[in-house]
Amino acid sequence: MMPSYLGGIEAGGTKFVCAVSERESGEIILEERFPTTDPISTLAKAAGFFKDASSQGYIIEALGIGTFGPAGVNISQSNYGKILATPKQGWEGADFLGTFRKSFIDLPIAFDTDVNAAAIGEGSNGAAKGLDSYVYITIGTGIGGGAVINGQLIKGLLHPEIGHISVRREGGDEFAGVCPFHKDCIEGLASGTAINERWGISAEELREDHPAWKLEAKYLASLCQTLTATFSPERIILGGGVMQQEPLLEMIQQEFKTLTNGYWQTPKNYLVTPELGNQAGITGCLKLAASLS
Amino acid sequence: MMPSYLGGIEAGGTKFVCAVSERESGEIILEERFPTTDPISTLAKAAGFFKDASSQGYIIEALGIGTFGPAGVNISQSNYGKILATPKQGWEGADFLGTFRKSFIDLPIAFDTDVNAAAIGEGSNGAAKGLDSYVYITIGTGIGGGAVINGQLIKGLLHPEIGHISVRREGGDEFAGVCPFHKDCIEGLASGTAINERWGISAEELREDHPAWKLEAKYLASLCQTLTATFSPERIILGGGVMQQEPLLEMIQQEFKTLTNGYWQTPKNYLVTPELGNQAGITGCLKLAASLS
Repeated sequence: MMPSYLGGIEAGGTKFVCAVSERESGEIILEERFPTTDPISTLAKAAGFFKDASSQGYIIEALGIGTFGPAGVNISQSNYGKILATPKQGWEGADFLGTFRKSFIDLPIAFDTDVNAAAIGEGSNGAAKGLDSYVYITIGTGIGGGAVINGQLIKGLLHPEIGHISVRREGGDEFAGVCPFHKDCIEGLASGTAINERWGISAEELREDHPAWKLEAKYLASLCQTLTATFSPERIILGGGVMQQEPLLEMIQQEFKTLTNGYWQTPKNYLVTPELGNQAGITGCLKLAASLS
Repeated sequence: MMPSYLGGIEAGGTKFVCAVSERESGEIILEERFPTTDPISTLAKAAGFFKDASSQGYIIEALGIGTFGPAGVNISQSNYGKILATPKQGWEGADFLGTFRKSFIDLPIAFDTDVNAAAIGEGSNGAAKGLDSYVYITIGTGIGGGAVINGQLIKGLLHPEIGHISVRREGGDEFAGVCPFHKDCIEGLASGTAINERWGISAEELREDHPAWKLEAKYLASLCQTLTATFSPERIILGGGVMQQEPLLEMIQQEFKTLTNGYWQTPKNYLVTPELGNQAGITGCLKLAASLS
């Protein structure tokens, strides 16, 4: 039997990852990473990757796209497949899915957010394997997340926008917040960008014993409280660059315990870090492709 | 053809509503309301209602229970059918479903929260009719809610606990909050109990032009922001006693617009009040029963 192949595009705000995998084994055969520039040349480069793959004999049967947001991911809505109101220069309104449909007629394509794709990735083969209900969040330049509930990704009018949750401010915190829309939503107070702005130093450069981490843990614990009170998940996976700071997870677990004060009887591994690291997104994109056929 | 009947129990913290409806028409044939006292006598009274109905020829084919929470509503978990850590005297650990299973052997029974039932009620025949994704919240003595996403009620580890969402405090608000677990979660700051404690007067007695309403609208708008950022629903229905204050809905709509600052393009009837009023719960219980057979 001829092997069959799947394609994935993890379209981040900074870089694109394109990959072809063997369907059976899940193994990635070809992969390319390149910076996200304007939509026309970036999407053309991504399409070119799959055309090259095809000419090498790696003809994909389905494609899974996970893009930075906000994006139209609900098939029943008119904005499906498009990039919505992003501050990212030139991308607002870009017809991501339409461009690929034109280049690859009849190819089944799944279109979702990068964080939804990462959630699917961690569910298929990572920290949420075997769970029906879980949340994946990423704390990096921004804050975003996806939720799988009863085995399905949450999508309604749009998709979750975890970063724009309104949170309880810590006493004495006078920092205005960096979100251009809401100032002090969780992204405005606790993203990597907020850390940089608040302390004048990047998260990577902050020492382990810097007071920034305690405040960060408090805000992220408050976010986890809200995610628990809404989605009632079996697990919350906290990923992204800011979580690279080793002791942060334990500090969040501690603050979550204090903050929720015994209200929820959460299981032992309730708050965890991802298992797939930076492969969660592309793994999920390939999984989305696999679900199509 | 003999008509067939369904049973419903809306088990509130203050009162129980028991009803028998004709399956075909949905019409309620028998209904009884009585105060919630201790579990043994209250559950016995509810069981007695259906035994009496049966002896009058109204033999129900299925029963839907919607109870005050927290409660075990996930069939895959060991606490299924039980009342969990409630401050309500005597009810913690009460085996609500088990009691009915013993009295009514072989009767199909659905067990859910009262707010989940109300959400189903509003979806079947009220303000969320025809929608796939929506949230129902009630602002009364406490704050609670249920969410239907992709046509299914959200349940995971537990069920949503909308009242215990952590929210942004309004500037200058020094009120400690009344939640015994978290002090200033949304229930602690904006429930009917909080209004009473904060202003020394009940929500029903507060004049329309009292500053309490502006603050209330700000907190509830902040709650709606978080519900939008998590569930991404097509509509949020705001019910419960506190919402009886007529101008409050419009004030919340206004504050939501200001607060979210154009980030979400929500449809015209995004924030609404219920259409079924205090019938939402029992309607939903009967609907849950109908879904069983």
